[in-house]
Amino acid sequence: MIVVMKKEASQDQIADVSQRIIDFGFRPHVITGVERTVIGAIGDSQEKERLNALINVEGVERVFPVSKPYRLAARSSKEEDSVVTVDGTPIGGGTFVVMAGPCSVESRQQIVETAHSVKKSGASFLRGGAYKPRTSPYSFQGMQVEGLKLLREAKEKTGLSIVTELMSADALNDVLAYTDIIQIGARNMQNFSLLRELGKTRKPVLLKRGLSATLEELLMSAEYIMSEGNYNVMLCERGIRTYEKAYRNTLDLNAVPALKQLTHLPIIVDPSHGTGRFDLVIPMSKAAIAAGADGIIVEVHPKPQEAMSDGDQSLTFERFELLMQEIKPFVTAAGKKLVIKN
Amino acid sequence: MIVVMKKEASQDQIADVSQRIIDFGFRPHVITGVERTVIGAIGDSQEKERLNALINVEGVERVFPVSKPYRLAARSSKEEDSVVTVDGTPIGGGTFVVMAGPCSVESRQQIVETAHSVKKSGASFLRGGAYKPRTSPYSFQGMQVEGLKLLREAKEKTGLSIVTELMSADALNDVLAYTDIIQIGARNMQNFSLLRELGKTRKPVLLKRGLSATLEELLMSAEYIMSEGNYNVMLCERGIRTYEKAYRNTLDLNAVPALKQLTHLPIIVDPSHGTGRFDLVIPMSKAAIAAGADGIIVEVHPKPQEAMSDGDQSLTFERFELLMQEIKPFVTAAGKKLVIKN
Amino acid sequence: MIVVMKKEASQDQIADVSQRIIDFGFRPHVITGVERTVIGAIGDSQEKERLNALINVEGVERVFPVSKPYRLAARSSKEEDSVVTVDGTPIGGGTFVVMAGPCSVESRQQIVETAHSVKKSGASFLRGGAYKPRTSPYSFQGMQVEGLKLLREAKEKTGLSIVTELMSADALNDVLAYTDIIQIGARNMQNFSLLRELGKTRKPVLLKRGLSATLEELLMSAEYIMSEGNYNVMLCERGIRTYEKAYRNTLDLNAVPALKQLTHLPIIVDPSHGTGRFDLVIPMSKAAIAAGADGIIVEVHPKPQEAMSDGDQSLTFERFELLMQEIKPFVTAAGKKLVIKN
Amino acid sequence: MIVVMKKEASQDQIADVSQRIIDFGFRPHVITGVERTVIGAIGDSQEKERLNALINVEGVERVFPVSKPYRLAARSSKEEDSVVTVDGTPIGGGTFVVMAGPCSVESRQQIVETAHSVKKSGASFLRGGAYKPRTSPYSFQGMQVEGLKLLREAKEKTGLSIVTELMSADALNDVLAYTDIIQIGARNMQNFSLLRELGKTRKPVLLKRGLSATLEELLMSAEYIMSEGNYNVMLCERGIRTYEKAYRNTLDLNAVPALKQLTHLPIIVDPSHGTGRFDLVIPMSKAAIAAGADGIIVEVHPKPQEAMSDGDQSLTFERFELLMQEIKPFVTAAGKKLVIKN
Repeated sequence: MIVVMKKEASQDQIADVSQRIIDFGFRPHVITGVERTVIGAIGDSQEKERLNALINVEGVERVFPVSKPYRLAARSSKEEDSVVTVDGTPIGGGTFVVMAGPCSVESRQQIVETAHSVKKSGASFLRGGAYKPRTSPYSFQGMQVEGLKLLREAKEKTGLSIVTELMSADALNDVLAYTDIIQIGARNMQNFSLLRELGKTRKPVLLKRGLSATLEELLMSAEYIMSEGNYNVMLCERGIRTYEKAYRNTLDLNAVPALKQLTHLPIIVDPSHGTGRFDLVIPMSKAAIAAGADGIIVEVHPKPQEAMSDGDQSLTFERFELLMQEIKPFVTAAGKKLVIKN
Repeated sequence: MIVVMKKEASQDQIADVSQRIIDFGFRPHVITGVERTVIGAIGDSQEKERLNALINVEGVERVFPVSKPYRLAARSSKEEDSVVTVDGTPIGGGTFVVMAGPCSVESRQQIVETAHSVKKSGASFLRGGAYKPRTSPYSFQGMQVEGLKLLREAKEKTGLSIVTELMSADALNDVLAYTDIIQIGARNMQNFSLLRELGKTRKPVLLKRGLSATLEELLMSAEYIMSEGNYNVMLCERGIRTYEKAYRNTLDLNAVPALKQLTHLPIIVDPSHGTGRFDLVIPMSKAAIAAGADGIIVEVHPKPQEAMSDGDQSLTFERFELLMQEIKPFVTAAGKKLVIKN
Repeated sequence: MIVVMKKEASQDQIADVSQRIIDFGFRPHVITGVERTVIGAIGDSQEKERLNALINVEGVERVFPVSKPYRLAARSSKEEDSVVTVDGTPIGGGTFVVMAGPCSVESRQQIVETAHSVKKSGASFLRGGAYKPRTSPYSFQGMQVEGLKLLREAKEKTGLSIVTELMSADALNDVLAYTDIIQIGARNMQNFSLLRELGKTRKPVLLKRGLSATLEELLMSAEYIMSEGNYNVMLCERGIRTYEKAYRNTLDLNAVPALKQLTHLPIIVDPSHGTGRFDLVIPMSKAAIAAGADGIIVEVHPKPQEAMSDGDQSLTFERFELLMQEIKPFVTAAGKKLVIKN
Repeated sequence: MIVVMKKEASQDQIADVSQRIIDFGFRPHVITGVERTVIGAIGDSQEKERLNALINVEGVERVFPVSKPYRLAARSSKEEDSVVTVDGTPIGGGTFVVMAGPCSVESRQQIVETAHSVKKSGASFLRGGAYKPRTSPYSFQGMQVEGLKLLREAKEKTGLSIVTELMSADALNDVLAYTDIIQIGARNMQNFSLLRELGKTRKPVLLKRGLSATLEELLMSAEYIMSEGNYNVMLCERGIRTYEKAYRNTLDLNAVPALKQLTHLPIIVDPSHGTGRFDLVIPMSKAAIAAGADGIIVEVHPKPQEAMSDGDQSLTFERFELLMQEIKPFVTAAGKKLVIKN
């Protein structure tokens, strides 16, 4: 940590801060500048963060960290890309995967028909929500366990692996039993109790970035899962909240190359939630690939205009087929290999 | 809902949208403008939201709602201010309450000493975290049940009512047993499972606005609790995330009068988290009162420079005493009555 | 400046950065931490900012400043509050001023009638736009010089001092001749050529914060004016752009106490543009006073529902009279003295 | 415009609003819903915007527009893509151009050397600032006319066309004389006086999106230029301001496909300012191409670590050469043709 003293700080105040740094278990290092004094706190301890409280000491202007608070998720702890393997399909490390399906599982016919269609077009994972986090208590809340069973049925018929969302710990066992990847939604990115529970399993987790989460916070949430022993974590950029009203969210593709520097974990992009507009999904999928993503997760529905949820951002089967055709040259340009399920 | 057709939409497309509106159970009403056609969907149904999916239909440019999605929380459902009564203390409807205490319960001495001090200065509630939502898995996570017991002990010694945070459903029974108000933190504002659980109790809830939640989303989260039968809900503005780096969060006081129009629920302001800077707490407390808040919740610690968490935004006892003195004329100017515990 | 080296930086890279710091005219000071090395660059020079380019050097992870880039505007350069005196009225240093009037000057009758009315209610300054920055080229662009003359006429009839906006240097002489305070709008806060021109005059300037300007950028824009010799600068908080849609802008009152620490310049708050909603103007005016503002600037129109511009955020005469009555106890509570023109 | 009445609005209030709509020159159309009444205002007039003031009328809850305020810039006014031709090079309509060069022109050697290098790598335009908008009045402000002459010299030696920024109207004639494209920077996007001046020329304009400008505001600024007769306008996405601190700005690539729907104007992306980090420029350039951009503008400097400005986001010659090699397959995948100058 670096403590910046006020311009007018006295020698006594500098000495006081130095002593407090020692009391916290660190070694102070004073730099006397022309305008002001700066004190480095040297040492390596979990308590580092508590040094922030020094802002309350007389003469201190600012305190800021020089090291990163995450460890297991950091690229510096593991130089090569992590690969998460699901049903034999490697995610990360040079492959490109497409996950597709409806926002919500609505019926057997809907999910099975969608599974067949997206598989034919080239998806390797089927997404579908059985538990739905809805802003309104009056909206459709998902088919729950029944929905999980239908996802499993769709898997048996098509061979597609399953991605579905877990919203609370009490459904953990059910979701564990039926899915291949557990998705943690944006609103639960900092549901730390839930993250710890997932950390105790070994199930692959797709961790979505919160609506206004920084990259550092996203990595700290991954760290929660990893610190309990589950290293099968994938990060998902799904749009952040900005002032712009032309799209529901602002897909932040800068996060892809920036995260690739900070972490070894695979990165998936969700252009459906990321923009909230079905007509932006194809161009932003291409852009995600070009930015370096390891995969995309896309909402597809047999009849988006009749969907129970997210109809405004879902693709028809035809449009998804077009997406798959149009992204191929970009996957090639990016030097990645598109994963196809047989 | 209003469906705005594209400039170039054909008569067939307009007829198609009208038919779909009928199929969803609404009555279409077509307005033919000079530049484009607009179609109102008339009716009142929980399904209203599904009309959003019409954006996917040919010829449609935009779909937007004209009515508000919350009902029980709406001012239009209850004109007079709601009053939540805790241990005989009314919150809302003309009183002003001050809740104060440390970010985390750290020890018996710390919490009891703080309780005595803030009571003496004029607080009527003791806040203190037993379960702490921390960005880092390596940070202090709170004393948990032990912390709850210490809060209870502090209550017994001072008569202050207790506010403490619930982070996950598995601690619900413990927290219910020991606290007078359950706080739901910003990160859990859209933890819908947890909100439903709270809705099944009758315990007063202090619901904090999420870091990037709109007022409408905050009200929808209140609606989750109320729709299960628990009407003892208070809203808390605690700062939103913006681009400005001079403060950790941007306390949004506009929310106070804007919410007062939209809802009958009491509104509390948290200037400690709202700014993240102890030196802004006093002026922003005054501003909160002037804006119409029904109370404030403030972090106070015997030695902020040694706090386990939030030391940078906590007040010393002396500064909190100053706060209480300085806010009094503003409480009077606002025509509110400061609640004092005997 | 502080240069943070990467964890894996070599001794050669540390030596290279140190040498480059010397080449830029500074003295390097190396701190060897447990995890990484940090190098302080000691010295005081206008060139400090160029050190940012060191990020491009091998082994460097981050570069950040420890000192503030503004000088004349800084509180540290002048401890006591600056007072800007306009027509004998002191702004700052313990007074509270109210500036009121229409968004645009629309006609002689409109502006003169408004001037009489707001004076009677207690305003000491008349605001009114003669040159209007409009988002659309097809909107009313203001009465220009004719408008300036009407403002002057209103001043002669009421004694109110005039505040009006300057949009471009070519109107500078006209505006100088007719106004008492020149307002620089949010969109021109970083029109550096215009700021320099104003710096060459001695006319009081009301400098509005840009829609997404940081406090530091606002102070740097004040510094542009002051560095040319014009110290008669007042800052104006007028709402920032956030994701929240319930108000047009988010009035950021945190800026008031935060700026009071950083600068000695007077601070005015504009609750009309700050919220974009007439029904939030009164509560946010009170909150501005409580937060420590030296004045407010408020839009008032004889018939807001027929205004050429900003009708949605303008007060009627009656509502403005109410505002003046309601803010008085808050001005008193804040220990300020309301300025009244005879 | 659509006027949404309050739930409790009376018949008299509905009649009053209808009459006012007539008075403004529009035709009211009342829709009586189950919960509330909505009134459409039919007509086509420049005055449409004034209807916003109806929010001030009793019984009105909200007013919102259904049509777009820009015309000449709208895709609906011109279906095919506009092509802006500069020195015989077409921009838009299927080509892809690369503009490259230093933030500031610093010396003859610097700019001529850079011009030769970027041309060799495949750029077709040379960028370089002669007038620099700097946050600090103490920073290097550009070489001004001398810089313009050096740009011209670099053009003569290499054949590259020139892009340079205009900051204020008084330099218009000089800039017109020496440049091929005039850049309007983000801070001047709503300098409406300057936009009007440019509208009176026929010089191609590269209009950068403001730091917190919406797409609609960007298009309205283009409309300012076009409404004066200059149709040679290109739009530039250059990053917006968000809460994320991992990059200086957040390059918003969603803007590219969204703007392509709204307008026929060419769209250029600036990944250098868009991210503020040289190490993100290559991936975000590829992503820009994939998202549908017509070109990129990139900062390149012989020695970024010694640059007078923007050293932290500038590429070395080697890295720019790498960029040109790496983007080629993406230009091909996007079906665009890279423009090369002979």
